[in-house]
Amino acid sequence: MADDQKLTTREADFGAWYNELVLKSELADYSPVRGCMVIRPNGYGIWERMQRAMDDMFKETGVQNAYFPLFIPESYLHKEARHVAGFAPELAVVTIGGGKVLEEPLVVRPTSETIIYAMFAKWVQSYRDLPLLINQWCNAVRWEMRTRLFLRTMEFLWQEGHTAHATAEEGEAETRLILGIYRRFMEEWAAMPVVTGRKSESEKFAGALRTYACEGMMQDNKALQAGTSHNLGQNFAKAFDLKFQTEAGGTEFAWNTSWGVSTRMVGGLVMTHGDDIGLRVPPKLAPTELVVVPIYRAEEQRAQVLSVAHQIRSDLSKGASPVRVHVDARENMTPGAKYYDWELRGVPLRLELGPRDLEKAQGILVRRDSREKRPVPLAELSRTATETLAAIQHDMYTTARDRRDAHSYRGPITYARFREIIDGDGGFVYAGWCGTDACEAVIKEETKATIRVLPDPEFQSPDAPRTCVKCGNDATVEAMWAKAY
Amino acid sequence: MADDQKLTTREADFGAWYNELVLKSELADYSPVRGCMVIRPNGYGIWERMQRAMDDMFKETGVQNAYFPLFIPESYLHKEARHVAGFAPELAVVTIGGGKVLEEPLVVRPTSETIIYAMFAKWVQSYRDLPLLINQWCNAVRWEMRTRLFLRTMEFLWQEGHTAHATAEEGEAETRLILGIYRRFMEEWAAMPVVTGRKSESEKFAGALRTYACEGMMQDNKALQAGTSHNLGQNFAKAFDLKFQTEAGGTEFAWNTSWGVSTRMVGGLVMTHGDDIGLRVPPKLAPTELVVVPIYRAEEQRAQVLSVAHQIRSDLSKGASPVRVHVDARENMTPGAKYYDWELRGVPLRLELGPRDLEKAQGILVRRDSREKRPVPLAELSRTATETLAAIQHDMYTTARDRRDAHSYRGPITYARFREIIDGDGGFVYAGWCGTDACEAVIKEETKATIRVLPDPEFQSPDAPRTCVKCGNDATVEAMWAKAY
Repeated sequence: MADDQKLTTREADFGAWYNELVLKSELADYSPVRGCMVIRPNGYGIWERMQRAMDDMFKETGVQNAYFPLFIPESYLHKEARHVAGFAPELAVVTIGGGKVLEEPLVVRPTSETIIYAMFAKWVQSYRDLPLLINQWCNAVRWEMRTRLFLRTMEFLWQEGHTAHATAEEGEAETRLILGIYRRFMEEWAAMPVVTGRKSESEKFAGALRTYACEGMMQDNKALQAGTSHNLGQNFAKAFDLKFQTEAGGTEFAWNTSWGVSTRMVGGLVMTHGDDIGLRVPPKLAPTELVVVPIYRAEEQRAQVLSVAHQIRSDLSKGASPVRVHVDARENMTPGAKYYDWELRGVPLRLELGPRDLEKAQGILVRRDSREKRPVPLAELSRTATETLAAIQHDMYTTARDRRDAHSYRGPITYARFREIIDGDGGFVYAGWCGTDACEAVIKEETKATIRVLPDPEFQSPDAPRTCVKCGNDATVEAMWAKAY
Repeated sequence: MADDQKLTTREADFGAWYNELVLKSELADYSPVRGCMVIRPNGYGIWERMQRAMDDMFKETGVQNAYFPLFIPESYLHKEARHVAGFAPELAVVTIGGGKVLEEPLVVRPTSETIIYAMFAKWVQSYRDLPLLINQWCNAVRWEMRTRLFLRTMEFLWQEGHTAHATAEEGEAETRLILGIYRRFMEEWAAMPVVTGRKSESEKFAGALRTYACEGMMQDNKALQAGTSHNLGQNFAKAFDLKFQTEAGGTEFAWNTSWGVSTRMVGGLVMTHGDDIGLRVPPKLAPTELVVVPIYRAEEQRAQVLSVAHQIRSDLSKGASPVRVHVDARENMTPGAKYYDWELRGVPLRLELGPRDLEKAQGILVRRDSREKRPVPLAELSRTATETLAAIQHDMYTTARDRRDAHSYRGPITYARFREIIDGDGGFVYAGWCGTDACEAVIKEETKATIRVLPDPEFQSPDAPRTCVKCGNDATVEAMWAKAY
């Protein structure tokens, strides 16, 4: 694919479109290390804004950041049987350090429950030390066979929260609190509607009591698990002897939760909002919200237009609703080439500013999402930009939600129709499930669809399904099925 | 050391004092992985503020953040001969991935020049792509034999900046620009005076043309290298074929710089400002600048005092100079125990607030640095707190600078006197150097002192030394010597 070629369309080949978009818009690049990517400034800038938004929300609930070692002694992983069974096939192992073979190999963290709860056991003595609410922003490594930029990489960046509580109820409440924060982040910041709910036993985190997740629908109608929150019960506390003195004077194991969102979200953003021209970044996550493209022919025009452009940047960056503005003053590049470039990168608003606009004290404001164009008096630009950015954020969410709803299927359904949907355009299929591993496994094998979640009440169908879509026996629960990344 | 015991004094045993302070104030803890530490919330909060301050300064100069893989193919390290020679003994090596022995082992990054310049080579075609100014915040691993919390850990957190330029002059200018940012950060934020200058050939970064550093003096009069900025010349560009088309149409190798500051700075902060009671955090880097300790006996007093305390937090967090306030509402803990706790943690200001204070509409404001106490009318608290925090920041810097200057030695000096200082109380000794590796090596062997820097002009002695302190031959340069961490 040459630089000047258009993207493959989503309809022609969604996977090719995705890869081309990520590479051409310089979100990320392949690295010389198999399965590891380089996150380029355009992609990292979005991740930084995601981090800031979530970090602020965590801290509001009393969570504090810390940092735990990258390496975990292999024996630690083995202390929780289901945990090691889940992660053993995916480990990267350091066997040589400082030129010598290590007595005990060190695992590069695939997740940090084991080392973190070992430390918690050292820090927690009494109920007064609880709850302990800790988060870390770090890298993690899982040896994946098939990798995709952002979506599934051997190394990824994420936050992993780990908490300890005095009661089962508090643990469950924390798990749900964080799931709510994730949902709010995805809806209000990433403009990505999600369905929340519990995972089935076969899909839950290795070592968890219960796993909750947020599932978004991508534009190919496949699901993306965008964030998970695990109620770990006392499984890890028992494995790592994380006990505390209760208020009554007894001793009890603590109740843990863990939860994470990763750079995968950047991929989710692309697949939720990108179009055949390029990326569309929701304003709240856009490192640049408005780009000013100065237009001039003669040199004396250049100075004048640039001067106004910089004044605009300065004005808009102040005040109660500051706007992040970039002035594209690159030379040897036509305005048209700049438009193309910024549309590819998904900057929400563009202001075209030429000598004739200046005569009228206006600029041409162009929305990236709808590509709607209109002249705006410069005197009103600050207010108009702020309002338009809010409108874009809102419209991007409703557009994504409407498209998700249009590809969601509820109500009585035969297995034949279920397969028709899943094998065809795909989507989210809500159907009854008898609750047996057998039916879940057969459906997965025959259709490649999995239970994404057992939806939370607000996502359940008004009429609860009565029978299992596979075996026809009584349904014990409603399940939301889809093919997934 | 029991929790209720005092710290070992700095005078009695500086090393023991440091370790006890770091552990008791909960900045960090030992981990089950040899040489790796856990950075606890108190320490990580300081690091987060350090990150924010430096990140803003980098970005102001056009630097963008990105992220490169943790793993580096072993063969990459070998492409720059001096680089691999420097780092080979310190490597952690992944030899197993996904259950299989890897064909090519992967090195856990000790620093990322090799993989980053390999990517730069892919991205840079023309002079128009330059300068390329990239930074990453990440972890790095060096297999150290003797580790110390924060100061020398097997894994550490840092930022590593990497840039590419079209000319040697621009590369040198960038190296110096960043050194200036580091100095500004250390002086203005960390209140840590530093001496800047160039490293000798034997002390420079493996693969660099020139290394510049900031050296601070700790309270045991040893030097701490707190940040380094390397002019890499074309060494890595040649090793990784990082070429560009010049404006004139030719082809040339790019000029690189790299620069880093790590979590070691947190240790430097402790050793610069801590006292026998605990930590003292400069206000600009303090996650909490002012802690309110409510004092009450009866329950109805409690509600009233806490209500005023929370009002103070709310008022002080707003306005032009917001102050980061924490209200310590812990129950079952005496005010005295809270004072002890916050003094140990180094919060710059404490406000004691009791019923009798409220009657007078005042609080008792206590400075952590000087422990000076005075009543302040609550109506003036916002202004007084802001002014006092600025005074503390200023005073901490001047105190550290005066102490550094009192232990700096300039002027004609014999080798006997040089040894007397270094073997005695220590300090920074400015002395002439003939420039030969031989004299440098002998002094290092005999005294354990090393050339910390060949000082920049503003740190050079008014009268340039004429002779080498070791051999007595003509001095080619002034060197600043000290024992170092």
